[in-house]
Amino acid sequence: MSDAFIAVDWGTTNRRAYHIDNGHVVSSERDEMGVLSVPPGGFPAQVAALRDRFGSLPVLMAGMVGSNRGWYDAGYVACPATIEILAAAVVESEPGVSIVPGVSVDTSSRVDVMRGEEVQLLGAVAAGLAPMDAMICQPGTHNKWATLQQGALIDFTTAMTGEMFAVLKAHALIGSEMGGEVDADASFDAGVAASADEDLLAALFGVRAASVLGRRKPGEAAAYVSGLLIGSDCRARLRQSRQTVHLLADGLLSRLYTAAITSVGGQAVVVDSHASFVAGITRIRDLMR
Amino acid sequence: MSDAFIAVDWGTTNRRAYHIDNGHVVSSERDEMGVLSVPPGGFPAQVAALRDRFGSLPVLMAGMVGSNRGWYDAGYVACPATIEILAAAVVESEPGVSIVPGVSVDTSSRVDVMRGEEVQLLGAVAAGLAPMDAMICQPGTHNKWATLQQGALIDFTTAMTGEMFAVLKAHALIGSEMGGEVDADASFDAGVAASADEDLLAALFGVRAASVLGRRKPGEAAAYVSGLLIGSDCRARLRQSRQTVHLLADGLLSRLYTAAITSVGGQAVVVDSHASFVAGITRIRDLMR
Repeated sequence: MSDAFIAVDWGTTNRRAYHIDNGHVVSSERDEMGVLSVPPGGFPAQVAALRDRFGSLPVLMAGMVGSNRGWYDAGYVACPATIEILAAAVVESEPGVSIVPGVSVDTSSRVDVMRGEEVQLLGAVAAGLAPMDAMICQPGTHNKWATLQQGALIDFTTAMTGEMFAVLKAHALIGSEMGGEVDADASFDAGVAASADEDLLAALFGVRAASVLGRRKPGEAAAYVSGLLIGSDCRARLRQSRQTVHLLADGLLSRLYTAAITSVGGQAVVVDSHASFVAGITRIRDLMR
Repeated sequence: MSDAFIAVDWGTTNRRAYHIDNGHVVSSERDEMGVLSVPPGGFPAQVAALRDRFGSLPVLMAGMVGSNRGWYDAGYVACPATIEILAAAVVESEPGVSIVPGVSVDTSSRVDVMRGEEVQLLGAVAAGLAPMDAMICQPGTHNKWATLQQGALIDFTTAMTGEMFAVLKAHALIGSEMGGEVDADASFDAGVAASADEDLLAALFGVRAASVLGRRKPGEAAAYVSGLLIGSDCRARLRQSRQTVHLLADGLLSRLYTAAITSVGGQAVVVDSHASFVAGITRIRDLMR
């Protein structure tokens, strides 16, 4: 019996599908058919189309497809979560099509939720890409900071760092100054340094004041604001010095978070997020059979 | 010679006009003819219309009417600013019509700007409504925290507290949970308490998680977010305990800031903002003659 299957990392705005056989990616595709782009009742047809392309295989999905805005609400398992617990809680949306649940923090003092990131997080550990005891950061719209202990996801915190940047750029008064490119440059570093004041609301207005008084070059504000937000996020998480953070990111976000983590006294180790997802979803599939 | 004049507090979206004689308000009006509602070249006609209603008197204005988006850029005077310095820097936009400049903080380490608030701040002190040495807070879209020393405005900080609330409510994912009423209630207090973590980006996402997990009643999130933002703002400003803050606010903002300032260990004293403006603009007018 072949252990080939189709794995789908199905987010709000994007989707990544993999044809996996014996733990190896045979082929993959990425498109913008996120759950918000699928019309009501349209998920079975989407899965049929995936099977037309990849073969008539079992399908295992993770991400927002398992939310109340997706196909079928797969619920949450509470921390501490392991890959075995996730595999045992997988639900079927139709025969041969399964969805991995999300993970929650649900204590009297604090609540949090993730959906989709858990496969990458536990997959990184399963694949040996991150140690059994680790702090792992997944930068994005809703940035996840996860604590792994003995291979289990015991706690995590979500920061709306990416969404805050997007909302400020599109809708705040300072958005009109934020047209420039963002990279891990001197303006970004200045923002990270300014985040040490722990006074985000005042620092953000400072962008406007600097513009009015001609104290910052046009085009530098976007990187500064990015540094301010990512710096605030990293400082709130890295309360002990020399903390190592495993970073599930590539491209620009990998550069920005590496720079900010280093600036605030931590060490960043970049981990391949696609390999982590493939390792995690394959391990869940193996445990289901 | 009568010392009657027309004073206008002319902001971005609102305008308040006063007919003042011998320091007393004869009549006043408030409308939504902020500078953004005045068509290009339309300011002289607006002033003529004010004179039709209040009499053919000299006009003295403050606020965004003196910005590059208003009638005539009245510039800024740098801190430390006194009411005498403001009066000496008043500019004429046409004969008999004058505009008070804004105030800036412009040092190598920090910049900030205000325009319009300076008349209230220095007026509060001139009228004896606030002491010569005071911390004064003017809540609003861009919240001002001013340090007065020996009657001079020596420093201030602007926090985008009000704008942040509005932008989150209108455009963030958590905005859909923020439909409820805001008041100084238990939800607001919980937000102020949560702001002690100094982790705004994570606390804001927590609003979403609490909603997904059913841990906060619908309608309570708006007051909680308001408490989180105003609490963060007050904590960043009240670094010493038992600090007294004079609050130029009325209505809801007065209640919210009084509650937050008290929660974080300070003392709030509410000051009449309209009386402060009238005292300040009258003093500037007297010094000009």
